[in-house]
Amino acid sequence: MAAWISRTDYTVKEGMVVVNAFPLSYLILHTWLLFTLHVGSISGDRSTYVVHMDKSVMPKAFANPHHWYSATLGSVTAAGPAASSAVQSAPKLLYIYDNAIHGFSVLLSLDELQALQKSPGFISAYQDKTVTVDTTHTTEFLSLNPVTGLWPASNYGEDVIVGVIDTGVWPESESFKDNGMTEVPARWKGACEPGEEFNSSMCNRKLIGAQYFNKGVMASNPGVNIIMNSTRDTMGHGTHTSSTATGSFVEGVSFFGYAKGTARGVAPAARVAMYKVLWEEGRYASDVLAGMDQAIADGVDVISISMGFDGVPFYEDPIAIASFAAMEKGVVVSSSAGNAGPSLGTLHNGIPWVLTVAAGSIDRQFAGTITLGNGLTIVGWSLFPENALLLELPLVYNETLAACSSSVLLSGANNAIVICKDNGNIFGQMDEVTRSNVSGAIIISNDSFFLDVGDFPSPVVVISPIDAPAVINYAKAGAKPTASLKFQQTFVGTKPAPTVASYTSRGPSPSYPGILKPDIMAPGSRVFASWIPNQYTAMIGSRLYLSSDYNIISGTSMACPHASGVAALLKGAHPEWSPAAIRSAMMTTANPLDNTLNPIRDTGENFESANPLAMGAGQVDPNKALDPGLIYDASAQDYVNLLCTMNYTREQLLTITRSSSYNCSNPSSDLSYPSFIALFSNTSSSVQEFRRTVTNAGDGASTYTVMLTPPEGSTVSVSPSTLIFGEKYEKQSYSVAIKYMPVRSGTVSYGSLVWVEDGGKHTVRSPIVVSSMTI
Amino acid sequence: MAAWISRTDYTVKEGMVVVNAFPLSYLILHTWLLFTLHVGSISGDRSTYVVHMDKSVMPKAFANPHHWYSATLGSVTAAGPAASSAVQSAPKLLYIYDNAIHGFSVLLSLDELQALQKSPGFISAYQDKTVTVDTTHTTEFLSLNPVTGLWPASNYGEDVIVGVIDTGVWPESESFKDNGMTEVPARWKGACEPGEEFNSSMCNRKLIGAQYFNKGVMASNPGVNIIMNSTRDTMGHGTHTSSTATGSFVEGVSFFGYAKGTARGVAPAARVAMYKVLWEEGRYASDVLAGMDQAIADGVDVISISMGFDGVPFYEDPIAIASFAAMEKGVVVSSSAGNAGPSLGTLHNGIPWVLTVAAGSIDRQFAGTITLGNGLTIVGWSLFPENALLLELPLVYNETLAACSSSVLLSGANNAIVICKDNGNIFGQMDEVTRSNVSGAIIISNDSFFLDVGDFPSPVVVISPIDAPAVINYAKAGAKPTASLKFQQTFVGTKPAPTVASYTSRGPSPSYPGILKPDIMAPGSRVFASWIPNQYTAMIGSRLYLSSDYNIISGTSMACPHASGVAALLKGAHPEWSPAAIRSAMMTTANPLDNTLNPIRDTGENFESANPLAMGAGQVDPNKALDPGLIYDASAQDYVNLLCTMNYTREQLLTITRSSSYNCSNPSSDLSYPSFIALFSNTSSSVQEFRRTVTNAGDGASTYTVMLTPPEGSTVSVSPSTLIFGEKYEKQSYSVAIKYMPVRSGTVSYGSLVWVEDGGKHTVRSPIVVSSMTI
Repeated sequence: MAAWISRTDYTVKEGMVVVNAFPLSYLILHTWLLFTLHVGSISGDRSTYVVHMDKSVMPKAFANPHHWYSATLGSVTAAGPAASSAVQSAPKLLYIYDNAIHGFSVLLSLDELQALQKSPGFISAYQDKTVTVDTTHTTEFLSLNPVTGLWPASNYGEDVIVGVIDTGVWPESESFKDNGMTEVPARWKGACEPGEEFNSSMCNRKLIGAQYFNKGVMASNPGVNIIMNSTRDTMGHGTHTSSTATGSFVEGVSFFGYAKGTARGVAPAARVAMYKVLWEEGRYASDVLAGMDQAIADGVDVISISMGFDGVPFYEDPIAIASFAAMEKGVVVSSSAGNAGPSLGTLHNGIPWVLTVAAGSIDRQFAGTITLGNGLTIVGWSLFPENALLLELPLVYNETLAACSSSVLLSGANNAIVICKDNGNIFGQMDEVTRSNVSGAIIISNDSFFLDVGDFPSPVVVISPIDAPAVINYAKAGAKPTASLKFQQTFVGTKPAPTVASYTSRGPSPSYPGILKPDIMAPGSRVFASWIPNQYTAMIGSRLYLSSDYNIISGTSMACPHASGVAALLKGAHPEWSPAAIRSAMMTTANPLDNTLNPIRDTGENFESANPLAMGAGQVDPNKALDPGLIYDASAQDYVNLLCTMNYTREQLLTITRSSSYNCSNPSSDLSYPSFIALFSNTSSSVQEFRRTVTNAGDGASTYTVMLTPPEGSTVSVSPSTLIFGEKYEKQSYSVAIKYMPVRSGTVSYGSLVWVEDGGKHTVRSPIVVSSMTI
Repeated sequence: MAAWISRTDYTVKEGMVVVNAFPLSYLILHTWLLFTLHVGSISGDRSTYVVHMDKSVMPKAFANPHHWYSATLGSVTAAGPAASSAVQSAPKLLYIYDNAIHGFSVLLSLDELQALQKSPGFISAYQDKTVTVDTTHTTEFLSLNPVTGLWPASNYGEDVIVGVIDTGVWPESESFKDNGMTEVPARWKGACEPGEEFNSSMCNRKLIGAQYFNKGVMASNPGVNIIMNSTRDTMGHGTHTSSTATGSFVEGVSFFGYAKGTARGVAPAARVAMYKVLWEEGRYASDVLAGMDQAIADGVDVISISMGFDGVPFYEDPIAIASFAAMEKGVVVSSSAGNAGPSLGTLHNGIPWVLTVAAGSIDRQFAGTITLGNGLTIVGWSLFPENALLLELPLVYNETLAACSSSVLLSGANNAIVICKDNGNIFGQMDEVTRSNVSGAIIISNDSFFLDVGDFPSPVVVISPIDAPAVINYAKAGAKPTASLKFQQTFVGTKPAPTVASYTSRGPSPSYPGILKPDIMAPGSRVFASWIPNQYTAMIGSRLYLSSDYNIISGTSMACPHASGVAALLKGAHPEWSPAAIRSAMMTTANPLDNTLNPIRDTGENFESANPLAMGAGQVDPNKALDPGLIYDASAQDYVNLLCTMNYTREQLLTITRSSSYNCSNPSSDLSYPSFIALFSNTSSSVQEFRRTVTNAGDGASTYTVMLTPPEGSTVSVSPSTLIFGEKYEKQSYSVAIKYMPVRSGTVSYGSLVWVEDGGKHTVRSPIVVSSMTI
């Protein structure tokens, strides 16, 4: 049994990065951080292990797996050497899993674990560990509309159930009102579990399920006091993600006057079931697995999971394992890529049978506007949470004050608006402004695209360095320079958008680099969605904490539920589509261009054109995904064939597949995936070949011709170059040869392969990545 | 010519009262106050006079009155003794008036005035003076609805034009959007006058007119710089009153989270024309007269005028004079009673041909809720403008701190919620709290009905003394007492409501006590309506000023436009009704009971039952006014007959009536008014008789029987006691004898006379007041 690779150091580093960039998120992430320190904490000599069992060898004598597992654990204790007098009672079973995996989680000593490993039916076991949550700050822009496309085609997702694995939910949020909704689908088997400040009447036709799982937390933290022992969200994250995916329409809302308008999820008529597995007291794989196990049993159609396990092979990754079972049942699992960008190879959830979602920006700016005494108006960034009245106040600029690093110095400019120059810590400068007697400030950012969201506790507008000369020159030259500031401004249609978020984790996937990950990008930065009202979301001054029913936050955690919502809508429009078909439709119709019709740029790479390792196929385009033309499908056996090439032991394979009915008679890394990645380990010229099969998802006969944009330094050939389909659902195969001519080691180049239907009705695009990089 | 009686002292006193009670209004009223000091200021030796001329004696040689007036003034200068070398040019004409009055306003020296008085056609002249505006702080509750009653019957006032005489308008306010409105009635003759920051395209189908009048201000303040020389509102008052009367529907608005909902005026489809006559630089009768004159010429149906002149006889009251002309043309003039209550005899606009409106409260509470650590929840008052998060903070009570009179002392309770006891200056205590380091405060009011609105710059909840023991006992007894405060709470349906506002001016009318005034009460306290965005309306802390497109303020200024809106709706539903008929319908259907079905209480009289001298006939009931059953009508000659009893000179009379076609052949104080006031100057028993004529406004035949509630100490007899009408519009007369048996001098008692239709479909109620008080 391989040991669980702890990524604590990494998580801390991630936390630090975020602390610098997003002060408001500091407390949120800091909260996560506190519990990250609990990784590997144990109960006496015992630790929590997740144990996978081969149910097919269960003796007929046992009525059910529970009896078998208990008997097995009983024998483990009896058989184990009494090395430690502290361990006398039978190991404590936490969860029995029967859907995501066959097995259980249990508190075991090392001796007991060794005994268990010898038990009949034992496949594998790994120590419980904590999970990384993908949160930063954000908002949204998907062109869904009630007239055409995916919303009307899916009836807004009415018949679809989305299971969200997260921190719980605030059931009173307006986003979970069920006004006008039809009855819950009869196939639903989930529950509305009562608990602390949560009763079963809090579910309705929108929020159809609410269950919580914390045996793992409690086992690893003996005596811990669970502060909210129910599905009620105390952190906001789950309320935000679940409302993003499925929130009902709520009119007339805003975040302190910003993003004013109607809130709604991507699939506003879909049902949502919350599985609370993340706790302020800790986040453990055993609980995550229990939530996913239950979601599959309950009959969800889509699982949305905005978290991931870093640096683990699939057979030790509870999400990879549970989502294999989900995939078998036709459940789409949509997951977040992680917030560890912009370095390559940082991604988690790079699982071939899962949808892996990167985060991008939105065409929306939260703004403050400046009007100078000379009439010039400049739009900057702000989130100051009130309609402050700063009308024709003195504008002060001098080099000393402009550091804005001392509230005492600043107070010399009493009741004026001061100009500050970014010293690398804008939010620190805001704090000085807040503690001073100035009325407001204009901070000149070093960055033309100041996208960070944080506390704006003072009336401050941040402006681009491009706008700085006009402001400074006026302030220096004017006899009595004045400025007026206006807040609570929201502008949409800003360009370019989307851009790839700097923080979004990049491929290749450490767990399997042979499949290009992430798959797709969705809005993740400054996403507006529901929040919990008992946590502060903004400040005014140094002492006034404000709360809101909505919050604007960023992260792949926010991108994931957007993709989950789109998947739900596609499931509603095409109930017969497999998870692979749904992912294929989303990927092959994704948009690699931004709203200036240029390639999407990457804020983590100095606004260079974004690499598919950052954004996958591009920005998800829900309406186009409704009608993709061709589909790259995959069966469970196809994924097993891929796993069979990975040199896994039988136990490792069985940990994922659970069933020996799969076999490795036909191992193949040639999974018919809708994207291509060619990794070359040497610097001499070589060729990689791929084979793909596509299904005609259009109506009737059609002919497609290939259109290639080879990655720089490569030649790509496709055979045949024309695919002719006689009827719907007909399959055709083609092969691709990528010849790599090395430029220099470590480079990544990219291109695309597009099947264009005659007449141009459908274009089916796959990104291609070529790299000599060693992962 | 009688001198204009200056009421500066009184206005100042009024201002002071308001300063104590309503700190937020301080600045607003203080602004008024500054200009009140300009009363009687003159230009060199000259002052502004309003001059009334007898147009019927204009020599035929003059093409128009302008020529005649100019020639007259020219001869005045020529003829006048050259007493002062400073006065050499011809007197400067400010305005020619031809609708409200015949005459002009002009800058004259005393010598010139004396010369003018000898000119042919001269009737009267009086020195220009400033006007008192009725503003404090407020909100609304009239049971208008789209299903039945006055809204649908009048098509929301679509064909009606309301002229508002006020401080101007903010044309960009959402309340003046004209979405979906039909074309402006063809009869409209008004203009959209361009000016500073105002162009003629700013009018639309809702705001159909905008004109401004400031020659009077400029004449009395030579060299004055008019800071906004256009109809644009710089004070908010006119934007508030005009949107209250006629504002379009605006969804999703609030005052910093309070009063959240849809804003709309009483007559939301009526058109509005603004006549700006009140200026930050001064408020003069000549400008008011010019605005009313223009409104009449333009063809408005209703004039709404939230201001008044204190202590002047009708022939020197520009509102009385202009509204006589308006009345003749069928224009309803709705005016505010004044904010000089609760003393009796303080009312202005007590004009027999005008509707005089008192102010009442609304069944709405702007609240903060307190949840104590023991679970007890208490609802208090608050207007703290943010969703502050004060969750389970330490609650501190001790006798020293509870004075809350020192921010230094308070800071000892750092980050706690302190309990304060009202020291008579709650808003001063709030300031101390604001400057301290406490997180919030609970202030125990001395008053069970804390109705004042003011700045809430800190998270403070004011509670009733009734709720105090529970809070104090918990804070004293609890081991670690905590409290949570929640803001931005709005509750409706509070009881009792309406109550008479303490500030509303009381009858009897000093200018003519023989008609019971005010006529009616309308919502005036804490009225929510549109505001100007460039003035602060709330504060957080000591330095952060906030603005809003809406404001909550109080005063008879706010009651008046409610009544004006109802009058506009009645005009729309019954275009044939005279101003007297409209007033009669509003009065005889008014409700003397509150929402507990008890008599309306008077907050200015320790919550005793309110006297008709405070509220007139009671709270206006728009839907009942639509179908009043009987109407007390009056013609212009009827009013002249009343004026003929007042010992006015021919010139004084002509100043009001303008035309000698009226005569005094039939003087009578027995105006057929829908209310009764019997004033007895001695303390011995005596009888007063009244005669009234009513018109059947119902459909077809009907029979009414009188129902009497005699005032205490009086007997009332009515003859006949049954009125039988054969058809619609038939008139019947009756007489009333009130026999007064003195209890003691100075007492006021009241009762009612109600005509009840057989079957009870209509009840036509008139209040009766009996008093031995000397006015």
